Amino acid sequence: MDTTNDITRVFLSAGRIPGLISLAGGLPEPSTFPASEIATIARDVIEAHPGEVLGYGPIEGLPELRDKLAARFGSAALNLTRANVLVTSGGMQGLDLIGKVLLEEGGLIAGQFPTYLGALDAWRPRSPTVRKMILEAPDFEPLSALDGAQFAYTVPNFSNPTGRMVDVGMRQALADAADRSGTWLIEDDPYGTLHYDGAPLPRMIELSARSRPGEPYQGPVVYMGTLSKEIAPGLRIGWVIAAPEMIEALTMAKQGSDMCTSGVTQRIALAALEAGLIERIQPAVLDIYRRRRDALCAAMAEHLGDWFDWDIPVGGMFVWAVAKDPAMDTDLLLPHAMAAGVCVVPSSVFDASGLDRRALRINFSFNEPDTLHEGVRRLAKAITTMQGS
Amino acid sequence: MDTTNDITRVFLSAGRIPGLISLAGGLPEPSTFPASEIATIARDVIEAHPGEVLGYGPIEGLPELRDKLAARFGSAALNLTRANVLVTSGGMQGLDLIGKVLLEEGGLIAGQFPTYLGALDAWRPRSPTVRKMILEAPDFEPLSALDGAQFAYTVPNFSNPTGRMVDVGMRQALADAADRSGTWLIEDDPYGTLHYDGAPLPRMIELSARSRPGEPYQGPVVYMGTLSKEIAPGLRIGWVIAAPEMIEALTMAKQGSDMCTSGVTQRIALAALEAGLIERIQPAVLDIYRRRRDALCAAMAEHLGDWFDWDIPVGGMFVWAVAKDPAMDTDLLLPHAMAAGVCVVPSSVFDASGLDRRALRINFSFNEPDTLHEGVRRLAKAITTMQGS
Repeated sequence: MDTTNDITRVFLSAGRIPGLISLAGGLPEPSTFPASEIATIARDVIEAHPGEVLGYGPIEGLPELRDKLAARFGSAALNLTRANVLVTSGGMQGLDLIGKVLLEEGGLIAGQFPTYLGALDAWRPRSPTVRKMILEAPDFEPLSALDGAQFAYTVPNFSNPTGRMVDVGMRQALADAADRSGTWLIEDDPYGTLHYDGAPLPRMIELSARSRPGEPYQGPVVYMGTLSKEIAPGLRIGWVIAAPEMIEALTMAKQGSDMCTSGVTQRIALAALEAGLIERIQPAVLDIYRRRRDALCAAMAEHLGDWFDWDIPVGGMFVWAVAKDPAMDTDLLLPHAMAAGVCVVPSSVFDASGLDRRALRINFSFNEPDTLHEGVRRLAKAITTMQGS
Repeated sequence: MDTTNDITRVFLSAGRIPGLISLAGGLPEPSTFPASEIATIARDVIEAHPGEVLGYGPIEGLPELRDKLAARFGSAALNLTRANVLVTSGGMQGLDLIGKVLLEEGGLIAGQFPTYLGALDAWRPRSPTVRKMILEAPDFEPLSALDGAQFAYTVPNFSNPTGRMVDVGMRQALADAADRSGTWLIEDDPYGTLHYDGAPLPRMIELSARSRPGEPYQGPVVYMGTLSKEIAPGLRIGWVIAAPEMIEALTMAKQGSDMCTSGVTQRIALAALEAGLIERIQPAVLDIYRRRRDALCAAMAEHLGDWFDWDIPVGGMFVWAVAKDPAMDTDLLLPHAMAAGVCVVPSSVFDASGLDRRALRINFSFNEPDTLHEGVRRLAKAITTMQGS
């Protein structure tokens, strides 16, 4: 009955330990939630559509919400209709459904490395082999990377865990390789709007569509998004945008998973999108997270520079710190960190083989600058303690 | 990518065909939803608990809701705490999670026959063998029926599809057999409160607990329920009540399925339970459904008595009509029924092997008495047409 690893259990329980500073999760700052607007919207949509929102809805999702999402992500090249859209119960469900539809027992996944832990969790029941795609390696070759895989998995914007952006050339190369090989290419994009510096890059599904501009989208890219980071995770509203045949297969899998997503939360999501809530809260959200990222990186420069290297991410929620010493074992560091009163995520959980022990994922979205600083100070103390023991 | 069968697709699409009377689904009557109370509750709980309901919640569910459910289903014999309770995204998710936790690829399930189609759909991705448990067969022997199965699956109250009640002696025998064999015994109970005549029977989890009364529940029965038939399906709130080790395993599986159920809908559910909404609406709900059951059965007596036998169910949403002629093929009847403007569910979908073609499931919860009568009249016409063709 083992469906996840023990490191995950440790840091999932970290939030409940008094006084512990958790730099482990990927939680948004609750004060950014537009709560009073959502409260009013909730009452209004239930009063306006009682039979619909309180009954069983279509498995694929509320038609108007699917239309809204098709309009939001479509473009001159990327021709989307509701047949390209499935509403999911949070972004995680999209990953679960992909596993149900595409992954055979013991099948092969080509996964951007390091790989989002939640995706590994979602697919672990099928005991897959995850072949590493190290996109920044000089000899990386997309077509051979995808060869033989049941699907490829990527997080091009501010990858979880590394915070890296996949550049536009590699996005195009991956989309082209998927098209040539017929391999489904998952573009998981939970953080896309959390962009703090510079301009956003085109989505792979957009690049994929440009090879047949304006035709109804039938391509190999399966794009996944969520309102969890744009409005609030508690709505549990995500989506998959893909070729109609893929949406149909995912819909059948969703039927056997949770029948349909709540009509209440779908109608809230639609009304929130129509009211422009994302656009209204986004400047404040970006400002808060940008300041927290800067505070974390400043504290890291002060306390961790002797041991770790990192890039300052242009978006997302995480800094990825790689030890200068290849003998560093961050799994062993974790108990020392917990004892010092701070929790971070060791790199082993982002490696399906569990072997990568050299790095840490550090979250900056959930804590105030002062707390981030204190957490980093405790982490430095834990390293000193571990190295002296 | 095939995850369900074609008959299911036909009747799922039936609701969208103008003029067609669908006696196929298991939908509640929307006018029974306490919409204005839920609208007010929704606004109030979001205003009162914004950070909690709009953030990520614990995977296991809102602690206060778990406590409330433990109190609701516990008794002097059945000692439940929140450690025995998992909140799920509708009842269907409990079935999906059970498959993830207990079912190996190609594993064996002991399933009450005929078997709820949604459960078969949930488990189909693992290609299980479903060994039939025909509980009313004179030679049925619980211990050998459970032998070697990864779990046993039952719907003791108004079974879907047959509407049958499993009697208290068989409930006890199944619970005892599960205890002796160490086989997990699923007690799926979506319809438990829809009881129109006579007194309810004790749950198998209650009977299981009576062998060690008052001890914290550690037994083999896994009880599943939902608010879908008691309040409204659109909340997508269900629950699993079981031994803590099972809840822990299901929780890990839920993490990789949808991370957590919406805090918004969980808080609405908790407030609805605390406000006594179920008790307030139940008399009217039972009255409506009892009258519809009687109308359906009267229409069947008038039009279908030459071809079918059925019992009048004491609860639930369905009448199970078995053809007098063993050569009747209800899969073949379906297209004639659709052409005559009525949809029902043929028995093949409730048989994992698809071989049972002799019966029909007819729903009475969703349509007015006059519509039920017209639907049955059309069904009789379809049989006549088929037999004449």
